[in-house]
Amino acid sequence: MAIKNAEATWKGTLKEGAGSMKLGSAGGDMPFTWASRFADEHKTNPEELMGAAHAGCFSMFLSAQLGKAGFPPTTIHTTAHVHLTDGPTISKIELNCEALVPGIDQAKFDELVAFSKAGCPVSKALAAVGEIVLHTTLKN
Amino acid sequence: MAIKNAEATWKGTLKEGAGSMKLGSAGGDMPFTWASRFADEHKTNPEELMGAAHAGCFSMFLSAQLGKAGFPPTTIHTTAHVHLTDGPTISKIELNCEALVPGIDQAKFDELVAFSKAGCPVSKALAAVGEIVLHTTLKN
Repeated sequence: MAIKNAEATWKGTLKEGAGSMKLGSAGGDMPFTWASRFADEHKTNPEELMGAAHAGCFSMFLSAQLGKAGFPPTTIHTTAHVHLTDGPTISKIELNCEALVPGIDQAKFDELVAFSKAGCPVSKALAAVGEIVLHTTLKN
Repeated sequence: MAIKNAEATWKGTLKEGAGSMKLGSAGGDMPFTWASRFADEHKTNPEELMGAAHAGCFSMFLSAQLGKAGFPPTTIHTTAHVHLTDGPTISKIELNCEALVPGIDQAKFDELVAFSKAGCPVSKALAAVGEIVLHTTLKN
């Protein structure tokens, strides 16, 4: 169906070295380091890329389900918080979703949210993550 | 240990609508669409973000293992190809890694590669993906 590409380079050791990641579709190198991953250095890291992928995939998939059910959404906005704990292990992903969906009732919305949480491609790929928590708010 | 953040928005229906993803550490919105995900429109998509995360995490983790074993690497470069097939499902991730690691022999390198493929945080999170294939080249 589709093959999407990316790449990464790491030079040197874990703590003194540095890396960069690059998307197939876009130009720039995205530098990352030990400190941007395990501490608070203000650069990117694999976890926030996974969080963006999960938030993006869930939002798009939920839009598809809502549209199929006759309730095309105005806006779906999802934040992701990816927890990297000792191991190191990605132990938890929290998603918080706010949606504006004209005409839908809470029960139907909740049903389509649950289907999307379990069934979007990135959720399925991340099924081995210990805890995936989703909170939703229907803003209508 | 660390919590990393990202977000995404989708507006409108699946095929006529459009989305954007945003990383916690970096400024810009990254627009995506149905066509950039399931066809060849030249914008980003969740799959290439996951590919970059996997390539970056594997490269960094392998560097850590090599360093611990007394063989700090000069360069590790990994490409990722993420397959999105009917379902839609992320059915396969191919990683191709070229490494320049002074002094190491092939057997020790292969041992640390296998450990890193199974044990890096993103590989563990993606354990539910049907097929993860890794090819490596030791360029020494």
